[in-house]
Amino acid sequence: MTDARQDQAAEWFAGLRDACCRAFEQLEDVFEESPLAPGRFTRTAWRRDGDDPGDDDHGGGVMALMHGRVFEKVGVNVSVVKGALSPEFRRAIPGGEAAGGQFWAAGISVVAHPCSPLVPAAHMNTRMIVTDHRWFGGGADLTPTFPLAEDSAAFHAALKAACDAHAVADYAHYKAWCDRYFYLPHRGEARGIGGIFFDNLASGDWDADFAFARAVGQAFLAVYSDLVARHLHEPWSEEQRRAQLIKRGRYVEFNLLYDRGTTFGLKTGGNVEAVLMSLPPAVIWP
Amino acid sequence: MTDARQDQAAEWFAGLRDACCRAFEQLEDVFEESPLAPGRFTRTAWRRDGDDPGDDDHGGGVMALMHGRVFEKVGVNVSVVKGALSPEFRRAIPGGEAAGGQFWAAGISVVAHPCSPLVPAAHMNTRMIVTDHRWFGGGADLTPTFPLAEDSAAFHAALKAACDAHAVADYAHYKAWCDRYFYLPHRGEARGIGGIFFDNLASGDWDADFAFARAVGQAFLAVYSDLVARHLHEPWSEEQRRAQLIKRGRYVEFNLLYDRGTTFGLKTGGNVEAVLMSLPPAVIWP
Repeated sequence: MTDARQDQAAEWFAGLRDACCRAFEQLEDVFEESPLAPGRFTRTAWRRDGDDPGDDDHGGGVMALMHGRVFEKVGVNVSVVKGALSPEFRRAIPGGEAAGGQFWAAGISVVAHPCSPLVPAAHMNTRMIVTDHRWFGGGADLTPTFPLAEDSAAFHAALKAACDAHAVADYAHYKAWCDRYFYLPHRGEARGIGGIFFDNLASGDWDADFAFARAVGQAFLAVYSDLVARHLHEPWSEEQRRAQLIKRGRYVEFNLLYDRGTTFGLKTGGNVEAVLMSLPPAVIWP
Repeated sequence: MTDARQDQAAEWFAGLRDACCRAFEQLEDVFEESPLAPGRFTRTAWRRDGDDPGDDDHGGGVMALMHGRVFEKVGVNVSVVKGALSPEFRRAIPGGEAAGGQFWAAGISVVAHPCSPLVPAAHMNTRMIVTDHRWFGGGADLTPTFPLAEDSAAFHAALKAACDAHAVADYAHYKAWCDRYFYLPHRGEARGIGGIFFDNLASGDWDADFAFARAVGQAFLAVYSDLVARHLHEPWSEEQRRAQLIKRGRYVEFNLLYDRGTTFGLKTGGNVEAVLMSLPPAVIWP
Protein backbone atom coordinates (compact mmCIF):
# COMPACT_ATOMS: atom_id res chain seq x y z
CA MET A 1 0.00 0.00 0.00
CA THR A 2 1.48 3.30 -1.04
CA ASP A 3 -0.04 6.74 -0.76
CA ALA A 4 0.00 9.62 -3.21
CA ARG A 5 3.26 11.02 -1.81
CA GLN A 6 5.12 7.78 -2.33
CA ASP A 7 3.79 7.57 -5.88
CA GLN A 8 4.83 11.18 -6.52
CA ALA A 9 8.36 10.56 -5.24
CA ALA A 10 8.78 7.36 -7.26
CA GLU A 11 7.53 9.17 -10.36
CA TRP A 12 9.99 12.00 -9.76
CA PHE A 13 12.94 9.64 -9.46
CA ALA A 14 11.99 7.95 -12.75
CA GLY A 15 11.58 11.33 -14.47
CA LEU A 16 14.95 12.55 -13.15
CA ARG A 17 16.50 9.34 -14.44
CA ASP A 18 15.10 10.11 -17.89
CA ALA A 19 16.48 13.65 -17.72
CA CYS A 20 19.94 12.41 -16.65
CA CYS A 21 20.06 9.83 -19.43
CA ARG A 22 19.00 12.44 -22.00
CA ALA A 23 21.58 14.97 -20.82
CA PHE A 24 24.43 12.42 -20.74
CA GLU A 25 23.52 11.10 -24.21
CA GLN A 26 23.57 14.68 -25.51
CA LEU A 27 27.10 15.07 -24.12
CA GLU A 28 28.03 11.89 -26.00
CA ASP A 29 26.70 13.50 -29.20
CA VAL A 30 28.66 16.71 -28.66
CA PHE A 31 32.06 14.97 -28.66
CA GLU A 32 32.15 14.70 -32.46
CA GLU A 33 35.95 14.60 -32.77
CA SER A 34 35.98 11.11 -31.22
CA PRO A 35 36.42 8.21 -33.64
CA LEU A 36 33.92 6.24 -31.52
CA ALA A 37 30.14 6.25 -31.89
CA PRO A 38 28.20 8.20 -29.25
CA GLY A 39 27.14 5.97 -26.34
CA ARG A 40 23.54 5.14 -25.56
CA PHE A 41 22.00 3.88 -22.31
CA THR A 42 20.67 0.37 -22.05
CA ARG A 43 18.13 -0.36 -19.33
CA THR A 44 17.85 -3.59 -17.33
CA ALA A 45 15.00 -4.22 -14.93
CA TRP A 46 15.47 -6.34 -11.81
CA ARG A 47 13.05 -7.65 -9.18
CA ARG A 48 13.87 -7.83 -5.51
CA ASP A 49 13.73 -11.26 -3.94
CA GLY A 50 11.09 -11.50 -1.28
CA ASP A 51 11.98 -11.59 2.38
CA ASP A 52 8.35 -11.95 3.46
CA PRO A 53 6.87 -15.25 2.29
CA GLY A 54 3.28 -13.94 2.51
CA ASP A 55 3.82 -11.24 -0.11
CA ASP A 56 5.52 -11.84 -3.41
CA ASP A 57 5.90 -8.26 -4.64
CA HIS A 58 8.97 -6.66 -3.08
CA GLY A 59 9.54 -4.19 -5.83
CA GLY A 60 12.67 -3.82 -7.84
CA GLY A 61 14.43 -1.36 -10.02
CA VAL A 62 15.87 -0.43 -13.37
CA MET A 63 19.57 0.01 -14.05
CA ALA A 64 20.42 2.34 -16.91
CA LEU A 65 24.04 1.87 -17.95
CA MET A 66 26.06 3.50 -20.73
CA HIS A 67 29.60 2.89 -21.97
CA GLY A 68 30.34 5.77 -24.28
CA ARG A 69 33.02 8.02 -25.73
CA VAL A 70 32.64 10.71 -23.05
CA PHE A 71 31.45 8.50 -20.22
CA GLU A 72 33.56 5.36 -19.92
CA LYS A 73 30.83 4.07 -17.59
CA VAL A 74 27.82 5.90 -16.23
CA GLY A 75 24.96 4.32 -14.34
CA VAL A 76 21.61 5.83 -13.44
CA ASN A 77 19.63 3.47 -11.24
CA VAL A 78 16.13 3.86 -9.85
CA SER A 79 14.42 1.50 -7.47
CA VAL A 80 11.19 1.18 -5.52
CA VAL A 81 11.43 -1.57 -2.94
CA LYS A 82 9.41 -2.68 0.07
CA GLY A 83 9.38 -5.51 2.53
CA ALA A 84 10.43 -6.46 6.02
CA LEU A 85 13.59 -5.23 7.73
CA SER A 86 15.74 -7.77 9.56
CA PRO A 87 15.49 -7.41 13.36
CA GLU A 88 18.95 -5.80 13.32
CA PHE A 89 17.98 -3.09 10.80
CA ARG A 90 14.59 -2.66 12.46
CA ARG A 91 16.33 -1.23 15.48
CA ALA A 92 18.88 0.75 13.47
CA ILE A 93 16.43 2.59 11.21
CA PRO A 94 14.17 5.42 12.39
CA GLY A 95 10.61 4.19 12.92
CA GLY A 96 11.62 0.64 12.00
CA GLU A 97 10.33 -0.95 15.21
CA ALA A 98 7.10 1.07 15.28
CA ALA A 99 6.35 -0.03 11.70
CA GLY A 100 6.64 -3.68 12.73
CA GLY A 101 9.71 -3.87 10.52
CA GLN A 102 7.86 -2.90 7.34
CA PHE A 103 9.61 -0.43 5.04
CA TRP A 104 9.26 1.20 1.64
CA ALA A 105 12.10 2.96 -0.14
CA ALA A 106 12.49 4.65 -3.49
CA GLY A 107 15.47 6.45 -4.92
CA ILE A 108 17.80 7.35 -7.70
CA SER A 109 21.55 6.86 -7.84
CA VAL A 110 23.88 8.34 -10.45
CA VAL A 111 27.57 7.45 -10.76
CA ALA A 112 29.62 8.78 -13.68
CA HIS A 113 33.16 7.71 -14.58
CA PRO A 114 34.27 9.74 -17.62
CA CYS A 115 36.89 8.55 -20.12
CA SER A 116 38.97 11.70 -19.83
CA PRO A 117 41.06 12.20 -16.71
CA LEU A 118 40.28 15.91 -17.06
CA VAL A 119 36.53 15.37 -16.63
CA PRO A 120 35.62 14.79 -12.96
CA ALA A 121 33.79 11.66 -11.82
CA ALA A 122 30.57 12.37 -9.95
CA HIS A 123 27.90 10.82 -7.78
CA MET A 124 24.36 11.86 -6.86
CA ASN A 125 21.73 10.02 -4.90
CA THR A 126 18.34 10.97 -3.46
CA ARG A 127 15.90 8.64 -1.75
CA MET A 128 12.63 8.63 0.16
CA ILE A 129 12.20 6.08 2.93
CA VAL A 130 9.01 5.15 4.77
CA THR A 131 8.78 3.14 7.98
CA ASP A 132 6.65 4.51 10.80
CA HIS A 133 8.53 7.70 9.84
CA ARG A 134 9.05 9.09 6.36
CA TRP A 135 12.09 11.05 5.26
CA PHE A 136 14.46 12.01 2.46
CA GLY A 137 18.19 11.51 2.22
CA GLY A 138 20.82 11.92 -0.40
CA GLY A 139 23.67 14.03 -1.64
CA ALA A 140 26.01 14.82 -4.46
CA ASP A 141 29.78 14.93 -4.65
CA LEU A 142 32.51 15.43 -7.22
CA THR A 143 35.72 13.40 -7.67
CA PRO A 144 38.17 15.08 -10.04
CA THR A 145 41.58 13.51 -10.63
CA PHE A 146 43.03 17.00 -11.05
CA PRO A 147 40.90 19.39 -8.96
CA LEU A 148 40.45 22.87 -10.42
CA ALA A 149 39.43 25.75 -8.18
CA GLU A 150 36.85 27.08 -10.65
CA ASP A 151 35.17 23.69 -11.08
CA SER A 152 35.01 23.14 -7.34
CA ALA A 153 33.59 26.62 -6.86
CA ALA A 154 30.90 26.05 -9.51
CA PHE A 155 29.93 22.68 -8.05
CA HIS A 156 29.71 23.94 -4.48
CA ALA A 157 27.86 27.10 -5.56
CA ALA A 158 25.19 25.09 -7.38
CA LEU A 159 24.52 22.93 -4.33
CA LYS A 160 24.58 25.95 -2.04
CA ALA A 161 21.99 27.67 -4.21
CA ALA A 162 19.75 24.58 -4.08
CA CYS A 163 20.02 24.54 -0.28
CA ASP A 164 19.61 28.30 0.14
CA ALA A 165 16.37 28.27 -1.85
CA HIS A 166 14.84 25.76 0.59
CA ALA A 167 14.33 26.66 4.23
CA VAL A 168 14.37 22.97 5.26
CA ALA A 169 18.01 22.59 4.12
CA ASP A 170 21.16 23.62 5.99
CA TYR A 171 24.00 24.00 3.47
CA ALA A 172 26.88 24.39 5.92
CA HIS A 173 25.78 21.31 7.84
CA TYR A 174 25.28 19.23 4.67
CA LYS A 175 28.62 20.30 3.22
CA ALA A 176 30.50 19.37 6.39
CA TRP A 177 28.62 16.06 6.56
CA CYS A 178 29.75 15.27 3.01
CA ASP A 179 33.40 16.03 3.82
CA ARG A 180 33.20 13.79 6.90
CA TYR A 181 31.45 10.99 5.04
CA PHE A 182 33.55 10.72 1.86
CA TYR A 183 36.86 10.31 3.66
CA LEU A 184 39.36 7.44 3.62
CA PRO A 185 40.88 7.26 7.12
CA HIS A 186 43.48 4.64 6.10
CA ARG A 187 44.83 7.04 3.46
CA GLY A 188 44.15 10.26 5.34
CA GLU A 189 42.54 11.44 2.08
CA ALA A 190 39.17 12.76 0.97
CA ARG A 191 37.50 10.78 -1.83
CA GLY A 192 36.97 13.93 -3.85
CA ILE A 193 36.26 17.64 -3.35
CA GLY A 194 32.98 17.05 -1.52
CA GLY A 195 29.51 18.43 -2.10
CA ILE A 196 26.55 17.83 0.19
CA PHE A 197 25.22 14.85 2.16
CA PHE A 198 21.94 14.75 4.10
CA ASP A 199 19.76 12.12 5.75
CA ASN A 200 16.68 11.82 7.94
CA LEU A 201 15.24 14.99 6.41
CA ALA A 202 11.72 15.22 7.86
CA SER A 203 11.00 18.86 8.66
CA GLY A 204 7.30 18.25 9.24
CA ASP A 205 6.46 19.76 5.84
CA TRP A 206 6.74 16.86 3.38
CA ASP A 207 6.11 19.04 0.34
CA ALA A 208 8.99 21.30 1.31
CA ASP A 209 11.30 18.34 1.90
CA PHE A 210 10.35 16.82 -1.45
CA ALA A 211 10.90 20.15 -3.19
CA PHE A 212 14.43 20.27 -1.76
CA ALA A 213 15.18 16.68 -2.81
CA ARG A 214 14.06 17.59 -6.35
CA ALA A 215 16.24 20.69 -6.31
CA VAL A 216 19.32 18.65 -5.40
CA GLY A 217 18.77 16.38 -8.39
CA GLN A 218 18.22 19.30 -10.76
CA ALA A 219 21.15 21.32 -9.46
CA PHE A 220 23.48 18.35 -9.73
CA LEU A 221 22.42 17.51 -13.27
CA ALA A 222 22.82 21.09 -14.46
CA VAL A 223 26.20 21.80 -12.89
CA TYR A 224 27.72 18.41 -13.65
CA SER A 225 26.61 18.49 -17.31
CA ASP A 226 28.20 21.91 -17.49
CA LEU A 227 31.51 20.68 -16.00
CA VAL A 228 31.61 17.75 -18.41
CA ALA A 229 30.94 20.02 -21.39
CA ARG A 230 33.66 22.40 -20.18
CA HIS A 231 36.41 19.76 -20.27
CA LEU A 232 35.41 17.00 -22.67
CA HIS A 233 37.28 18.41 -25.66
CA GLU A 234 40.59 18.89 -23.83
CA PRO A 235 43.41 16.54 -24.89
CA TRP A 236 44.97 14.45 -22.15
CA SER A 237 48.17 12.45 -21.71
CA GLU A 238 48.90 8.86 -20.75
CA GLU A 239 50.34 10.13 -17.45
CA GLN A 240 47.06 11.90 -16.69
CA ARG A 241 45.11 8.76 -17.60
CA ARG A 242 47.31 6.70 -15.27
CA ALA A 243 46.69 9.17 -12.44
CA GLN A 244 42.93 8.82 -13.07
CA LEU A 245 43.11 5.00 -12.90
CA ILE A 246 45.01 5.21 -9.60
CA LYS A 247 42.54 7.78 -8.23
CA ARG A 248 39.74 5.37 -9.12
CA GLY A 249 41.38 2.80 -6.85
CA ARG A 250 40.69 5.15 -3.93
CA TYR A 251 37.07 5.31 -5.10
CA VAL A 252 36.86 1.50 -4.95
CA GLU A 253 38.54 1.43 -1.54
CA PHE A 254 36.02 3.93 -0.19
CA ASN A 255 32.97 2.21 -1.62
CA LEU A 256 33.91 -1.29 -0.47
CA LEU A 257 35.47 -0.41 2.89
CA TYR A 258 33.24 2.42 4.12
CA ASP A 259 30.18 3.26 2.02
CA ARG A 260 27.04 2.52 4.02
CA GLY A 261 24.84 2.22 0.94
CA THR A 262 27.14 -0.40 -0.59
CA THR A 263 27.55 -2.55 2.50
CA PHE A 264 23.82 -2.14 3.36
CA GLY A 265 22.86 -3.20 -0.15
CA LEU A 266 25.19 -6.21 -0.19
CA LYS A 267 24.30 -7.40 3.29
CA THR A 268 20.52 -7.09 2.81
CA GLY A 269 20.45 -9.05 -0.43
CA GLY A 270 20.14 -6.05 -2.75
CA ASN A 271 20.74 -6.52 -6.47
CA VAL A 272 24.52 -7.02 -6.63
CA GLU A 273 24.96 -5.56 -10.12
CA ALA A 274 22.92 -2.47 -9.19
CA VAL A 275 24.75 -1.98 -5.86
CA LEU A 276 28.19 -2.37 -7.46
CA MET A 277 27.31 -0.27 -10.53
CA SER A 278 29.31 2.48 -8.79
CA LEU A 279 32.63 0.65 -9.27
CA PRO A 280 34.82 2.20 -11.97
CA PRO A 281 35.23 0.48 -15.33
CA ALA A 282 39.04 0.28 -15.18
CA VAL A 283 41.30 0.71 -12.18
CA ILE A 284 44.97 0.20 -11.33
CA TRP A 285 46.77 -0.40 -8.07
CA PRO A 286 50.42 -0.04 -9.16
CA MET B 1 62.26 -8.77 24.40
CA THR B 2 62.18 -11.73 22.08
CA ASP B 3 63.31 -15.26 22.74
CA ALA B 4 65.18 -17.68 20.48
CA ARG B 5 61.96 -19.04 18.96
CA GLN B 6 60.75 -15.65 17.88
CA ASP B 7 64.14 -14.94 16.34
CA GLN B 8 64.09 -18.30 14.55
CA ALA B 9 60.62 -17.66 13.14
CA ALA B 10 61.51 -14.14 11.97
CA GLU B 11 64.66 -15.47 10.35
CA TRP B 12 62.68 -18.19 8.58
CA PHE B 13 60.19 -15.70 7.16
CA ALA B 14 63.03 -13.56 5.79
CA GLY B 15 64.73 -16.60 4.27
CA LEU B 16 61.47 -17.79 2.67
CA ARG B 17 61.03 -14.30 1.26
CA ASP B 18 64.47 -14.57 -0.35
CA ALA B 19 63.60 -17.99 -1.79
CA CYS B 20 60.30 -16.69 -3.21
CA CYS B 21 61.96 -13.68 -4.80
CA ARG B 22 64.66 -15.88 -6.32
CA ALA B 23 62.14 -18.38 -7.71
CA PHE B 24 59.88 -15.70 -9.18
CA GLU B 25 62.83 -13.87 -10.76
CA GLN B 26 63.93 -17.16 -12.33
CA LEU B 27 60.46 -17.53 -13.85
CA GLU B 28 60.88 -14.02 -15.26
CA ASP B 29 64.14 -15.15 -16.88
CA VAL B 30 62.57 -18.26 -18.41
CA PHE B 31 60.01 -16.30 -20.46
CA GLU B 32 62.54 -15.38 -23.15
CA GLU B 33 59.99 -14.96 -25.97
CA SER B 34 58.67 -11.81 -24.29
CA PRO B 35 59.83 -8.50 -25.79
CA LEU B 36 60.03 -7.10 -22.25
CA ALA B 37 63.01 -7.32 -19.91
CA PRO B 38 62.74 -9.82 -17.04
CA GLY B 39 61.36 -8.22 -13.87
CA ARG B 40 63.35 -7.79 -10.70
CA PHE B 41 62.14 -7.21 -7.15
CA THR B 42 62.66 -3.89 -5.44
CA ARG B 43 62.58 -3.79 -1.66
CA THR B 44 61.19 -1.01 0.49
CA ALA B 45 61.52 -1.01 4.26
CA TRP B 46 58.90 0.59 6.49
CA ARG B 47 58.73 1.25 10.23
CA ARG B 48 55.59 0.86 12.27
CA ASP B 49 54.36 3.96 14.07
CA GLY B 50 54.42 3.55 17.80
CA ASP B 51 51.26 3.05 19.79
CA ASP B 52 53.10 2.97 23.11
CA PRO B 53 54.70 6.34 23.88
CA GLY B 54 57.24 4.76 26.28
CA ASP B 55 58.86 2.59 23.61
CA ASP B 56 59.88 3.88 20.22
CA ASP B 57 60.70 0.59 18.49
CA HIS B 58 57.53 -1.04 17.19
CA GLY B 59 59.19 -2.96 14.43
CA GLY B 60 58.35 -2.76 10.78
CA GLY B 61 58.77 -4.69 7.61
CA VAL B 62 60.10 -4.92 4.11
CA MET B 63 57.92 -4.98 0.99
CA ALA B 64 59.45 -6.73 -2.00
CA LEU B 65 57.52 -5.82 -5.14
CA MET B 66 58.09 -6.82 -8.76
CA HIS B 67 56.37 -5.74 -11.97
CA GLY B 68 57.61 -8.13 -14.61
CA ARG B 69 56.83 -9.92 -17.85
CA VAL B 70 55.45 -13.05 -16.18
CA PHE B 71 54.20 -11.43 -12.99
CA GLU B 72 52.26 -8.26 -13.69
CA LYS B 73 52.53 -7.58 -9.95
CA VAL B 74 53.88 -9.82 -7.23
CA GLY B 75 54.55 -8.80 -3.66
CA VAL B 76 56.45 -10.66 -0.96
CA ASN B 77 56.18 -8.86 2.34
CA VAL B 78 57.77 -9.72 5.66
CA SER B 79 57.18 -7.93 8.92
CA VAL B 80 58.15 -8.18 12.58
CA VAL B 81 56.01 -5.88 14.71
CA LYS B 82 55.28 -5.46 18.39
CA GLY B 83 53.43 -3.12 20.66
CA ALA B 84 50.20 -2.71 22.54
CA LEU B 85 46.83 -4.01 21.34
CA SER B 86 43.84 -1.68 21.56
CA PRO B 87 41.41 -2.69 24.35
CA GLU B 88 39.07 -4.02 21.65
CA PHE B 89 41.69 -6.34 20.10
CA ARG B 90 43.02 -7.28 23.53
CA ARG B 91 39.75 -9.08 24.20
CA ALA B 92 39.46 -10.51 20.69
CA ILE B 93 42.92 -12.10 20.49
CA PRO B 94 43.93 -15.23 22.40
CA GLY B 95 46.03 -14.35 25.43
CA GLY B 96 45.69 -10.63 24.70
CA GLU B 97 44.29 -9.71 28.11
CA ALA B 98 46.70 -11.92 30.04
CA ALA B 99 49.66 -10.30 28.25
CA GLY B 100 48.48 -6.87 29.40
CA GLY B 101 47.79 -6.08 25.75
CA GLN B 102 51.38 -6.62 24.63
CA PHE B 103 51.89 -8.53 21.38
CA TRP B 104 54.59 -9.55 18.96
CA ALA B 105 53.91 -10.79 15.44
CA ALA B 106 56.06 -11.85 12.52
CA GLY B 107 55.01 -13.18 9.16
CA ILE B 108 55.32 -13.40 5.43
CA SER B 109 52.68 -12.63 2.84
CA VAL B 110 52.92 -13.48 -0.86
CA VAL B 111 50.40 -12.30 -3.47
CA ALA B 112 51.03 -12.97 -7.17
CA HIS B 113 49.02 -11.50 -10.06
CA PRO B 114 50.47 -12.90 -13.31
CA CYS B 115 50.22 -11.13 -16.68
CA SER B 116 48.74 -14.14 -18.45
CA PRO B 117 45.11 -15.01 -17.77
CA LEU B 118 46.17 -18.66 -18.11
CA VAL B 119 48.54 -18.46 -15.13
CA PRO B 120 46.62 -18.59 -11.81
CA ALA B 121 46.93 -15.83 -9.23
CA ALA B 122 48.01 -17.07 -5.80
CA HIS B 123 48.33 -16.09 -2.18
CA MET B 124 50.31 -17.53 0.73
CA ASN B 125 50.73 -16.24 4.24
CA THR B 126 52.25 -17.65 7.43
CA ARG B 127 52.67 -15.83 10.70
CA MET B 128 53.70 -16.36 14.30
CA ILE B 129 51.93 -14.37 16.99
CA VAL B 130 52.88 -14.00 20.64
CA THR B 131 50.70 -12.60 23.42
CA ASP B 132 50.38 -14.57 26.62
CA HIS B 133 49.91 -17.42 24.11
CA ARG B 134 52.03 -18.15 21.07
CA TRP B 135 50.73 -19.68 17.88
CA PHE B 136 51.03 -19.97 14.10
CA GLY B 137 48.47 -19.18 11.45
CA GLY B 138 48.42 -18.94 7.70
CA GLY B 139 47.36 -20.60 4.52
CA ALA B 140 47.67 -20.72 0.79
CA ASP B 141 45.08 -20.52 -1.96
CA LEU B 142 44.94 -20.38 -5.75
CA THR B 143 42.79 -18.10 -7.94
CA PRO B 144 42.78 -19.19 -11.58
CA THR B 145 40.62 -17.29 -14.07
CA PHE B 146 40.10 -20.55 -15.96
CA PRO B 147 40.36 -23.40 -13.44
CA LEU B 148 41.94 -26.61 -14.75
CA ALA B 149 41.30 -29.88 -12.96
CA GLU B 150 44.95 -30.96 -13.15
CA ASP B 151 46.22 -27.66 -11.72
CA SER B 152 43.73 -27.77 -8.87
CA ALA B 153 44.64 -31.37 -8.15
CA ALA B 154 48.37 -30.56 -8.07
CA PHE B 155 47.85 -27.55 -5.79
CA HIS B 156 45.62 -29.42 -3.35
CA ALA B 157 47.92 -32.47 -3.38
CA ALA B 158 50.96 -30.37 -2.48
CA LEU B 159 49.21 -28.82 0.50
CA LYS B 160 47.77 -32.16 1.56
CA ALA B 161 51.26 -33.68 1.50
CA ALA B 162 52.56 -30.83 3.68
CA CYS B 163 49.75 -31.43 6.18
CA ASP B 164 50.00 -35.22 6.11
CA ALA B 165 53.73 -35.07 6.93
CA HIS B 166 52.98 -33.13 10.14
CA ALA B 167 50.91 -34.67 12.91
CA VAL B 168 49.92 -31.23 14.24
CA ALA B 169 48.04 -30.39 11.00
CA ASP B 170 44.55 -31.50 9.97
CA TYR B 171 44.27 -31.25 6.18
CA ALA B 172 40.52 -31.85 5.85
CA HIS B 173 39.78 -29.22 8.48
CA TYR B 174 42.19 -26.68 6.97
CA LYS B 175 40.87 -27.23 3.45
CA ALA B 176 37.24 -26.74 4.54
CA TRP B 177 38.27 -23.64 6.54
CA CYS B 178 39.86 -22.18 3.39
CA ASP B 179 36.72 -22.80 1.32
CA ARG B 180 34.59 -21.13 4.00
CA TYR B 181 36.94 -18.20 4.39
CA PHE B 182 37.62 -17.25 0.74
CA TYR B 183 33.96 -16.93 -0.19
CA LEU B 184 31.98 -13.90 -1.47
CA PRO B 185 28.46 -14.21 -0.02
CA HIS B 186 27.11 -11.28 -2.08
CA ARG B 187 28.12 -13.10 -5.28
CA GLY B 188 27.54 -16.63 -4.04
CA GLU B 189 31.03 -17.35 -5.42
CA ALA B 190 34.32 -18.71 -4.09
CA ARG B 191 37.32 -16.39 -4.58
CA GLY B 192 39.29 -19.18 -6.19
CA ILE B 193 39.70 -22.93 -5.98
CA GLY B 194 40.77 -22.92 -2.33
CA GLY B 195 43.75 -24.43 -0.59
CA ILE B 196 44.28 -24.44 3.17
CA PHE B 197 43.67 -21.96 5.98
CA PHE B 198 44.70 -22.40 9.62
CA ASP B 199 44.93 -20.27 12.73
CA ASN B 200 45.63 -20.55 16.46
CA LEU B 201 47.95 -23.51 15.82
CA ALA B 202 49.50 -24.23 19.21
CA SER B 203 49.71 -27.97 19.65
CA GLY B 204 51.94 -27.76 22.72
CA ASP B 205 54.98 -28.72 20.64
CA TRP B 206 56.30 -25.44 19.23
CA ASP B 207 59.00 -27.11 17.15
CA ALA B 208 56.39 -29.30 15.45
CA ASP B 209 54.10 -26.31 14.77
CA PHE B 210 57.02 -24.33 13.35
CA ALA B 211 58.05 -27.27 11.16
CA PHE B 212 54.53 -27.37 9.73
CA ALA B 213 54.46 -23.60 9.08
CA ARG B 214 57.77 -23.97 7.22
CA ALA B 215 56.38 -26.89 5.20
CA VAL B 216 53.39 -24.81 4.07
CA GLY B 217 55.68 -22.11 2.73
CA GLN B 218 57.94 -24.61 0.96
CA ALA B 219 55.05 -26.61 -0.50
CA PHE B 220 53.37 -23.47 -1.79
CA LEU B 221 56.52 -22.11 -3.41
CA ALA B 222 57.29 -25.42 -5.13
CA VAL B 223 53.82 -26.14 -6.48
CA TYR B 224 53.02 -22.56 -7.48
CA SER B 225 56.34 -22.11 -9.30
CA ASP B 226 55.56 -25.32 -11.12
CA LEU B 227 52.07 -24.14 -12.14
CA VAL B 228 53.44 -20.83 -13.40
CA ALA B 229 56.15 -22.61 -15.42
CA ARG B 230 53.52 -24.96 -16.85
CA HIS B 231 51.41 -22.15 -18.37
CA LEU B 232 53.60 -19.11 -18.88
CA HIS B 233 54.42 -19.85 -22.52
CA GLU B 234 50.79 -20.41 -23.60
CA PRO B 235 49.34 -17.72 -25.89
CA TRP B 236 46.19 -16.03 -24.69
CA SER B 237 43.44 -13.91 -26.26
CA GLU B 238 42.00 -10.49 -25.45
CA GLU B 239 38.78 -12.21 -24.33
CA GLN B 240 40.76 -14.29 -21.85
CA ARG B 241 42.57 -11.19 -20.61
CA ARG B 242 39.24 -9.41 -20.14
CA ALA B 243 37.90 -12.36 -18.14
CA GLN B 244 41.02 -12.17 -15.94
CA LEU B 245 40.52 -8.44 -15.27
CA ILE B 246 36.89 -9.07 -14.30
CA LYS B 247 37.88 -12.00 -12.07
CA ARG B 248 40.37 -9.68 -10.36
CA GLY B 249 37.43 -7.42 -9.46
CA ARG B 250 36.08 -10.28 -7.32
CA TYR B 251 39.50 -10.49 -5.68
CA VAL B 252 39.30 -6.79 -4.78
CA GLU B 253 35.74 -7.17 -3.52
CA PHE B 254 36.79 -10.04 -1.25
CA ASN B 255 39.86 -8.31 0.12
CA LEU B 256 38.15 -4.99 0.89
CA LEU B 257 34.76 -6.33 2.01
CA TYR B 258 35.70 -9.47 3.94
CA ASP B 259 39.42 -10.16 4.43
CA ARG B 260 40.25 -9.99 8.12
CA GLY B 261 43.93 -9.32 7.52
CA THR B 262 43.16 -6.33 5.32
CA THR B 263 40.58 -4.72 7.57
CA PHE B 264 42.72 -5.53 10.66
CA GLY B 265 45.75 -3.94 9.02
CA LEU B 266 43.90 -0.81 7.92
CA LYS B 267 42.05 -0.31 11.20
CA THR B 268 45.12 -0.80 13.39
CA GLY B 269 47.27 1.67 11.50
CA GLY B 270 49.29 -0.91 9.57
CA ASN B 271 51.42 0.23 6.65
CA VAL B 272 48.78 1.02 4.01
CA GLU B 273 50.96 0.20 1.01
CA ALA B 274 51.98 -3.13 2.53
CA VAL B 275 48.41 -4.05 3.53
CA LEU B 276 47.01 -3.15 0.09
CA MET B 277 49.91 -4.75 -1.82
CA SER B 278 47.46 -7.62 -2.44
CA LEU B 279 45.26 -5.51 -4.75
CA PRO B 280 45.66 -6.43 -8.43
CA PRO B 281 47.58 -4.12 -10.79
CA ALA B 282 44.71 -3.69 -13.29
CA VAL B 283 41.04 -4.47 -12.80
CA ILE B 284 37.79 -3.86 -14.64
CA TRP B 285 34.18 -3.69 -13.50
CA PRO B 286 32.35 -3.62 -16.82
